[in-house]
Amino acid sequence: MTTSGTTIGWIGTGIMGAPMCGHLLARGYHVRLHNRTLARAAPLLDRGAVWAVSPRQVVEQCDVVFTMVGFQQDVRQVYWGEAGLLAGLRPGVTLVDMTTSSPSLAQEIHAAARAKGAQALDAPVSGGDIGARNATLSIMVGGDKEALDRLTPLLEVMGKIIVHQGGPGAGQHAKLSNQVVVAGTMVGICEGLLYGYMAGLDLPMLLQSIAGGAAACRSLDVLAPRMLKRDFAPGFRVDHFVKDMGMVLDEAKRMGLALPGLALVHQLYLAVQAQGHGKQGTQALLLALEQLSNTQLAGPAVG
Amino acid sequence: MTTSGTTIGWIGTGIMGAPMCGHLLARGYHVRLHNRTLARAAPLLDRGAVWAVSPRQVVEQCDVVFTMVGFQQDVRQVYWGEAGLLAGLRPGVTLVDMTTSSPSLAQEIHAAARAKGAQALDAPVSGGDIGARNATLSIMVGGDKEALDRLTPLLEVMGKIIVHQGGPGAGQHAKLSNQVVVAGTMVGICEGLLYGYMAGLDLPMLLQSIAGGAAACRSLDVLAPRMLKRDFAPGFRVDHFVKDMGMVLDEAKRMGLALPGLALVHQLYLAVQAQGHGKQGTQALLLALEQLSNTQLAGPAVG
Repeated sequence: MTTSGTTIGWIGTGIMGAPMCGHLLARGYHVRLHNRTLARAAPLLDRGAVWAVSPRQVVEQCDVVFTMVGFQQDVRQVYWGEAGLLAGLRPGVTLVDMTTSSPSLAQEIHAAARAKGAQALDAPVSGGDIGARNATLSIMVGGDKEALDRLTPLLEVMGKIIVHQGGPGAGQHAKLSNQVVVAGTMVGICEGLLYGYMAGLDLPMLLQSIAGGAAACRSLDVLAPRMLKRDFAPGFRVDHFVKDMGMVLDEAKRMGLALPGLALVHQLYLAVQAQGHGKQGTQALLLALEQLSNTQLAGPAVG
Repeated sequence: MTTSGTTIGWIGTGIMGAPMCGHLLARGYHVRLHNRTLARAAPLLDRGAVWAVSPRQVVEQCDVVFTMVGFQQDVRQVYWGEAGLLAGLRPGVTLVDMTTSSPSLAQEIHAAARAKGAQALDAPVSGGDIGARNATLSIMVGGDKEALDRLTPLLEVMGKIIVHQGGPGAGQHAKLSNQVVVAGTMVGICEGLLYGYMAGLDLPMLLQSIAGGAAACRSLDVLAPRMLKRDFAPGFRVDHFVKDMGMVLDEAKRMGLALPGLALVHQLYLAVQAQGHGKQGTQALLLALEQLSNTQLAGPAVG
């Protein structure tokens, strides 16, 4: 069913969605596409994807539809309403939401799909813009194992590590756990660089030492060099990260779980937003910490 | 001068010092050894190292002496006083302190050595017990470049990444920056695991997903599995990490630098100590966060 030649539905062509959908096209899949802003889908249409005017029109002609949009309300808009996916859903179809969204919304979608004899998976990803472009994403999947097994060949076109985390919503919970780890890592990296700068160290040389020791991590490799170049363009946007951390804090409150580290990082990212950097990449955390101590890492002026 | 057959001085045979010194013996260097507790040096003496009753007796017969002890006051005791290294120091000798200690103490040692026509380097390491055993440490060096160049063949026996970070104390500053990154990473990992556990996820499967994405990091690979096994034996001790973070906060206060993330992690580790886990490994941060929310990751009872 999902061999090359099959028509796949795709909704959402942002920083992540566009390269992920591009990999499917490159492998010879036919893609039926919708995006809120037509212009941002143009490069994929040039490569052979076919435009549909609504999510409903996408699903009416496909057996598998992937969604990769921004916020929870965008997911609701794509799935519900007159022109939404659920309105056009037929038995046997599988919907895969790759947006990072709330576990309870994933469960809601799963139940709504089930009611129509269809399937839904939550399959958020980690690995950022680079992971999306290189098809090395980690894909965390919640929902029925059998549905995942059927779609694994498609997911393998976009990612490298594909793990079934449990029932509906479990993929979202796994992604939120992942974001908690990222949050701690980000504040550590920014503060470590600031300390090294104030101590008079050569920062590229400092990174060389840190990357070789116990603090080695992906964000250090990818985002610290961007910080040193004062390149705050988004791989992963601050606004989206704040959304993710907010969902964790909501869930954790419900669970009776205190997360003091995450709560602090969440506050610091609210400061990043307050300072007008919400559409920058998560490495812009550095800007809020610089402002806090009225300093700035040496380097070219902010672009 | 530092070819195999040379006699090297070594002081401090703890979790880190013992395997590091062992690599020198394995390469055929003669080692003259001192440690506060003779018993803990016994395995190295069995392998051919020669005992000296004091640091002074070590340096009187060697041209290069490495020190790897625990706390700043231990460094002072080894270098100063009647039986200390400085008392027996001859022109041309090089002292290398690999203890993580304060940048200002490193500068003091450098000046005292200079006054006797000798050299001193600060060369703290990162990579933990595994890095020490596998000789894959990252070694961050402060002091004269020429002295480092001369000793590089010896450092390469113990580590993989050796970077000259600047003048006296710069190695210590680099190591402290590294610890700031580690601090953020540790709280992220512990809170991420706790969230995943409370959400009902299978934690080894969760780790597989996280390790494949943007949150991938060395501490996750090495320490998270120990947390899941409730193995809190020290690779790197809580008491030492608290010392390092305290030094950063002192230096940062002097620099006029606010480090809210580090300050919080420092407080959480004070709680780990207060709960009686100061001699455990840094992964024991999990215990304080568990206690905070009155929960415990499923797994075998605490050993």
